[in-house]
Amino acid sequence: MNYPNKKTKEKIQITTNRSKLGMSLENDINVTNTTYINEDIAIIYKKPTPIKIVKVDYKKRSTAHIVDAYYNQPSTTDYNGIYKGKYIDFEAKECHSKTSFPFSSIHKHQILHLQRCNRHGGICFIILRMYQYQKTFLIKAEDFLDFYKGESRKSLPIDWINKYGYEIRFKFSKPVDYLEVVDKVYKLK
Amino acid sequence: MNYPNKKTKEKIQITTNRSKLGMSLENDINVTNTTYINEDIAIIYKKPTPIKIVKVDYKKRSTAHIVDAYYNQPSTTDYNGIYKGKYIDFEAKECHSKTSFPFSSIHKHQILHLQRCNRHGGICFIILRMYQYQKTFLIKAEDFLDFYKGESRKSLPIDWINKYGYEIRFKFSKPVDYLEVVDKVYKLK
Repeated sequence: MNYPNKKTKEKIQITTNRSKLGMSLENDINVTNTTYINEDIAIIYKKPTPIKIVKVDYKKRSTAHIVDAYYNQPSTTDYNGIYKGKYIDFEAKECHSKTSFPFSSIHKHQILHLQRCNRHGGICFIILRMYQYQKTFLIKAEDFLDFYKGESRKSLPIDWINKYGYEIRFKFSKPVDYLEVVDKVYKLK
Repeated sequence: MNYPNKKTKEKIQITTNRSKLGMSLENDINVTNTTYINEDIAIIYKKPTPIKIVKVDYKKRSTAHIVDAYYNQPSTTDYNGIYKGKYIDFEAKECHSKTSFPFSSIHKHQILHLQRCNRHGGICFIILRMYQYQKTFLIKAEDFLDFYKGESRKSLPIDWINKYGYEIRFKFSKPVDYLEVVDKVYKLK
């Protein structure tokens, strides 16, 4: 790992072992969120990965050492926070297919969570990186849910993504500047 | 643990080992939040405890077994979500002193997080259970921050808590019905 990434190393360590595919998008979003916080634009964090602890070793009084644990399935999306007084909630996915994004890549309870938050007035979306096209899209939860509900398909076709997705621009300090898109799409001032 | 708690058992297991003092308030808030979700009143969750993973055993292909890990300090508050279109953010603390709530019980970066979210228009507060008085209070972040900033004290005195805190009522299905207080204090309709 290169020196400039050193600061974020600890944060992404948890997922490194789980899914190398998602690491780079996750890293990009973490860098972006840190910039948002430092520039006082928005307060948005990735939630910690849920872990079920089975056994803790208390031999050393000062530190609790976890010696037996497993990953739990998340019951919500990975990211939430506040922007311009609005509740923001999203899930990030990286897709390596050229033709479509399979619904099997997103947990059903995460979709349910987006549906609920959307209904309660939050700004909810999916950030989808189509790796083969080197493009990252913001997909509004309501557009996604419409398609997910109405179709018997098992995936989002690339044509649908190009039509309904909003491309997110890359910037050095904000590799996934999704709030720029949020401003336009949700007409925030 | 009793049968009625079985559903939430998994969620609270993580903190059970860390601090038995906080368990009952945390449990009460989890039950309340589950009721809010089931009754479609609000979507508010406790964030998972942040854990730094050192070593994972992949012997069994199906499950990643964590064999070496430590607790990380949280960088935000424990709870956030959406209610009536508003961003909600709070920290919960249980206090066993009769005279005051010591500031050493709340991390500085958690106070900073409340400050930031408050400035960005969120509804931010602390839920404080004064165990000796069998009372649970909602304390607005701005009131807390005013006192924290303005005073050279190291704690919130009980007189201040009685004056500025809003008592939260107990109900069976909502042991800490804090949104009832939020409605009144923040004049939400």
